[in-house]
Amino acid sequence: MTASPRLRLAMIGGGPGSMIGAVHRFATRLDDRYELVAGVFSTRAEANRQTAAELLLDPSRCYDDYQQLVNAEAQRADGAQVVAITTPNHSHYDIACACIEAGLDVVCEKPMTVTLKEAEDLAKRLQNSRSRLVLMHNYCGYPLVQHARDLVLRGELGRIRSVQVEYVQDWLSEVPDADNKQAAWRLDPKRAGAAGALGDIGTHAFQLACFISGLKLNAVSADLSAMVSGRTLDDNVHALLRFEGGAKGMLWASQTSPGFENALRIRVIGETASLAWAQENPNELWFAPLHGAAQRLTRRADRIGADAGRSVRLPPGHPEGYLEGFANLYQALADGVSGQADGGWLPDHSTGVDGLRFIEATLQSNQANGAWTPLGGAA
Amino acid sequence: MTASPRLRLAMIGGGPGSMIGAVHRFATRLDDRYELVAGVFSTRAEANRQTAAELLLDPSRCYDDYQQLVNAEAQRADGAQVVAITTPNHSHYDIACACIEAGLDVVCEKPMTVTLKEAEDLAKRLQNSRSRLVLMHNYCGYPLVQHARDLVLRGELGRIRSVQVEYVQDWLSEVPDADNKQAAWRLDPKRAGAAGALGDIGTHAFQLACFISGLKLNAVSADLSAMVSGRTLDDNVHALLRFEGGAKGMLWASQTSPGFENALRIRVIGETASLAWAQENPNELWFAPLHGAAQRLTRRADRIGADAGRSVRLPPGHPEGYLEGFANLYQALADGVSGQADGGWLPDHSTGVDGLRFIEATLQSNQANGAWTPLGGAA
Amino acid sequence: MTASPRLRLAMIGGGPGSMIGAVHRFATRLDDRYELVAGVFSTRAEANRQTAAELLLDPSRCYDDYQQLVNAEAQRADGAQVVAITTPNHSHYDIACACIEAGLDVVCEKPMTVTLKEAEDLAKRLQNSRSRLVLMHNYCGYPLVQHARDLVLRGELGRIRSVQVEYVQDWLSEVPDADNKQAAWRLDPKRAGAAGALGDIGTHAFQLACFISGLKLNAVSADLSAMVSGRTLDDNVHALLRFEGGAKGMLWASQTSPGFENALRIRVIGETASLAWAQENPNELWFAPLHGAAQRLTRRADRIGADAGRSVRLPPGHPEGYLEGFANLYQALADGVSGQADGGWLPDHSTGVDGLRFIEATLQSNQANGAWTPLGGAA
Amino acid sequence: MTASPRLRLAMIGGGPGSMIGAVHRFATRLDDRYELVAGVFSTRAEANRQTAAELLLDPSRCYDDYQQLVNAEAQRADGAQVVAITTPNHSHYDIACACIEAGLDVVCEKPMTVTLKEAEDLAKRLQNSRSRLVLMHNYCGYPLVQHARDLVLRGELGRIRSVQVEYVQDWLSEVPDADNKQAAWRLDPKRAGAAGALGDIGTHAFQLACFISGLKLNAVSADLSAMVSGRTLDDNVHALLRFEGGAKGMLWASQTSPGFENALRIRVIGETASLAWAQENPNELWFAPLHGAAQRLTRRADRIGADAGRSVRLPPGHPEGYLEGFANLYQALADGVSGQADGGWLPDHSTGVDGLRFIEATLQSNQANGAWTPLGGAA
Repeated sequence: MTASPRLRLAMIGGGPGSMIGAVHRFATRLDDRYELVAGVFSTRAEANRQTAAELLLDPSRCYDDYQQLVNAEAQRADGAQVVAITTPNHSHYDIACACIEAGLDVVCEKPMTVTLKEAEDLAKRLQNSRSRLVLMHNYCGYPLVQHARDLVLRGELGRIRSVQVEYVQDWLSEVPDADNKQAAWRLDPKRAGAAGALGDIGTHAFQLACFISGLKLNAVSADLSAMVSGRTLDDNVHALLRFEGGAKGMLWASQTSPGFENALRIRVIGETASLAWAQENPNELWFAPLHGAAQRLTRRADRIGADAGRSVRLPPGHPEGYLEGFANLYQALADGVSGQADGGWLPDHSTGVDGLRFIEATLQSNQANGAWTPLGGAA
Repeated sequence: MTASPRLRLAMIGGGPGSMIGAVHRFATRLDDRYELVAGVFSTRAEANRQTAAELLLDPSRCYDDYQQLVNAEAQRADGAQVVAITTPNHSHYDIACACIEAGLDVVCEKPMTVTLKEAEDLAKRLQNSRSRLVLMHNYCGYPLVQHARDLVLRGELGRIRSVQVEYVQDWLSEVPDADNKQAAWRLDPKRAGAAGALGDIGTHAFQLACFISGLKLNAVSADLSAMVSGRTLDDNVHALLRFEGGAKGMLWASQTSPGFENALRIRVIGETASLAWAQENPNELWFAPLHGAAQRLTRRADRIGADAGRSVRLPPGHPEGYLEGFANLYQALADGVSGQADGGWLPDHSTGVDGLRFIEATLQSNQANGAWTPLGGAA
Repeated sequence: MTASPRLRLAMIGGGPGSMIGAVHRFATRLDDRYELVAGVFSTRAEANRQTAAELLLDPSRCYDDYQQLVNAEAQRADGAQVVAITTPNHSHYDIACACIEAGLDVVCEKPMTVTLKEAEDLAKRLQNSRSRLVLMHNYCGYPLVQHARDLVLRGELGRIRSVQVEYVQDWLSEVPDADNKQAAWRLDPKRAGAAGALGDIGTHAFQLACFISGLKLNAVSADLSAMVSGRTLDDNVHALLRFEGGAKGMLWASQTSPGFENALRIRVIGETASLAWAQENPNELWFAPLHGAAQRLTRRADRIGADAGRSVRLPPGHPEGYLEGFANLYQALADGVSGQADGGWLPDHSTGVDGLRFIEATLQSNQANGAWTPLGGAA
Repeated sequence: MTASPRLRLAMIGGGPGSMIGAVHRFATRLDDRYELVAGVFSTRAEANRQTAAELLLDPSRCYDDYQQLVNAEAQRADGAQVVAITTPNHSHYDIACACIEAGLDVVCEKPMTVTLKEAEDLAKRLQNSRSRLVLMHNYCGYPLVQHARDLVLRGELGRIRSVQVEYVQDWLSEVPDADNKQAAWRLDPKRAGAAGALGDIGTHAFQLACFISGLKLNAVSADLSAMVSGRTLDDNVHALLRFEGGAKGMLWASQTSPGFENALRIRVIGETASLAWAQENPNELWFAPLHGAAQRLTRRADRIGADAGRSVRLPPGHPEGYLEGFANLYQALADGVSGQADGGWLPDHSTGVDGLRFIEATLQSNQANGAWTPLGGAA
């Protein structure tokens, strides 16, 4: 095996107070397949410079805004090849367009855009470009999520009957402190878009349900709430799901449920078996056949498939976590760029379009008092 | 404390192959507050006699049918005082009417009747009679369920935001064997009524949600399925809930989900804390405050309230189970009859009416493609 | 199946404040195979009468002492057939001798006696009598404990390598209140014997280890402590074990470990698989093969053997608990008396002798600063 | 905060088939505080070169042996500052001596050496040098392990009564494949030293027990086994422990227990509370007070102390794992070198000496049939 040189990475966003920017950086370092070479970390000049300095970045490649970054890096022989977009939702579209225009690959936080129209436009641009876009649905980077998907695909559960998915947090249970930057933009429709918890974590739950079950969602019936008074956007989502082929489902997303930290959990029920996985203890996957004992599956190398196996770094019993999930998406992108593997499982712009279809159908259903609303799209 | 004499009990149903009849008998023996004196165990004469003999019952008090039993026992000075109805759903109403007519107390399996009309009629009869009816929602007999209710009532969770309840089994995942009597009547609309899993276990989930949260359900939006082909009645229920006061909820009931045995589980989310309880491991209750660590509560006598304490027989760490839950309803009835305690928490005919309202509203919502449907009743 | 008449039961002990007497009564009622007909519940006359009254016992069969009870009942045609001994340890021997003398069957709390000499004498008397003695090692009454034993016997674990057993409580973590009767006699060498936690719960752990593993313990190396100052008897036991055939083990028993309620837990490690069971959640048994996923076994009727199956009353998912374990020993005794099953697994006087051998060897090892001490007995 | 430049790192060991070398590299990349600049990865020249190439290392800094590396790097202005020793046990001493001689800092795998004599000599050399040595007891790098230690130090458990620690694996349950390099050297006394599982994982368990409890081990009574026939070194360790101040303990280490992956687990019992932590689910810590409910602690920033907080990278609910634990030791070393924090908790050469004292006392006790054997050292 010949080593590939490191991919040159630029980051937009991820300044002081950003959690997710730091996560992307941890993840890109882990496998040494990326080198951070440029960035715009904050709209505040001082914060931007400071972050660049802390990251030991060449100060000349710390730019004032994303357009400047794209222009300058596209000129350089050693310019950035991949751009990580970790800014609030409303800016994803413009930044991604600029990157695509310049032929750069993109790793973008979810939701891909704030409107379906933008998402579809972005998808069209990507189809006509040599750029790739990886949408950071990091939870499908966990090896046992990939193994769960393999089990479904191999028919181990029989036909799917239902999918029960929930993503529950408590960090917005109260009115947040004024200096909580992460809360501020997420609660602001101008920056987060029309969906609150729905866009922020509901889309993760939706994507995970489709990723593991292999099913397309046909329609949704939703009941959104703002549990904390004075809040414009939803912070609690209840939804019923109907998938193609007759499978049903339920989805609960909440950021106002005390005692839940980052409780993404999924159960997939088939005719002959069910499975269950929970993100907070991600190194076990439950597989329960109708005629046999429930099994606790771990990351044993000899028991999981190729994609899942490629996402494993450590022997079983040595817990892997959140960062490795992120890193697996970055690694699969690097594999794809270098031709080592196709990364066919990577969430991309079509996943992004699906996510916006889900958001818009859910909002529409909620406005129609829960009327079943189709997701539309190519049937 | 003076001992009360044992209450004289008759049983209708509970012949060969019945699980629930045996459970009632185990439960009534546990505290020695009841003595089985009469019964009609089966419509098949031989089976009826055989069961009576196994139970060491006086053969002369093994009757051919419930009407004969009620008539004969009502004549005797030492006649039955309480009748346990453990027959299929469709017969509850007639049997209960006969018992009430004769002034006997009744312990009735759920659902109380197969139609709301019957339920309301039965409630009216009870209000005008000296009979009591205990509806066997056994799960609220668990001490930690009662403690959960106390925590909510005492305000430890703040205002309730949502209730997530599910009751999931797998025993009807396939077409059952022809000789499975329990499955046979439950899948037959003539004996089970118009609701399948909805009536059998959905009503338990509904009742538990209301019992713990202390909230009245205003409306439901439902999506019912028959997952096994050829089945007339629902075997999988997805429902969204809206409670009085703005709380929301989700309810999942299923008898076709492989790997789930008797998985009744509830989570109640309040503004300041949440709680979680699961029937399969009933001796722990989770309480998670927003500002503090999640706590695992057990049946420690010094930490739970009066009702819950009265339902405890053993020191913590010595697991109690399903039978004790049943026994607690029987014990509270005996306490009520003897004036030792009011048993105000006991599910009764009004609980039964609520259950039928839930069933009918859910069926109606499902027929209207999930339209929000009010439960009605005295607002 | 013809019904057997109920066995007539007498109880010695179990007056006000006794937990274990009440447990025996719950357990004997459950299956309706016993009828309590006589008793000596307390050495305090008023308490004795009061308990008898609460139990609705014929006052003339509430006796002043055990000898009177045995004499009187042995005279009656309808006299007691089985005597339950639930008194403090030091009195077991004398009471049991009287019962054996009178040809009565005995259910005796553990440890069987306070000295090995007494235990061996009792065993000899039983061998020369028509009485049976069941030693109340209730934990082997759990169906999944019996299934664990079956798995070992069937060779599913291969040759046993080690047994890890612990029984940990916290109720004696501090100096108990003066009116705590249960604590009082257990901490008093005159009534408890020379072993504290060792005799009270260490013997349960020892018996469970031997019961499941099917191995005889050869030798022990022990380190006993009195963690609470001023205490004469041990309240914490650490021991290393050597079984026949080369298996090793560790045993921890403690009554002074905060946060542990009744935490009896065992793991048996074989060459090809291991198993794990914990009393506080007794309805699951873990089986982990070397080459395959760990399995969570439940009481599914089609998956467990005959003895274990006979000990099951409810479908899986409907939790059984502590009382059912007790009841299973009483039921197996009734089966034995009536010839319905041999109850070959029932702990008896030879188990009792083994328990005293374990106690004496452990005390001796501790006095010899942990020197390996053989248990002796017929090799 | 001014960014520190990256520390220049060299690695000895970690060639093809090494798990732990890769782990060190993942861990050093995570926080971007280190840059791998030199290495000797294998004694096989081709494997050595190949690993260097895969790591994108300057080929001129891939050396033939450790002595060459130390000599060459010590000459360079941009030479390595820290050397990671990830070779089999028998070579640690010589390599560490060479590094110390050259004034380099060392991160060394455990056990530090194969004899106590070597360990003491190394400690003396370090005391007389400007080099630091961090011993890779990675498990104390977990934030909740550090929080556990804080709880003990703050007196939240009262005086410690007992420590129960176990480290159990199954990967050596059978005779390993001939090409399993990791197994080969661990089973070979020439390379592993006189201790098998005892040295490989028993020392981790011992160190964790001392780290969290804050107690020094006075004496040990041990029973070692080679469960797999033909094996020279122990693969299963049972030991009783006596700590200073009267606390007792038990230690189980095994590499031949089917179903256990990397099951390091510790319980610390105090007078007023106990705690429990298990490595395979490291993001929760149980704290159970005598008078209150058991609590599930997580990495909530506002609830854990300074050292533990510094070891946290992600919000609670976002699982951290094994690599982060390693990274925390590397980060604390970097903090120490740069003067940002003192890293007082870091395992160092004195920890290494303690580990060898534990190994030698345990071996000696085993040879003396379990006689209590003091650990010696400065009392």
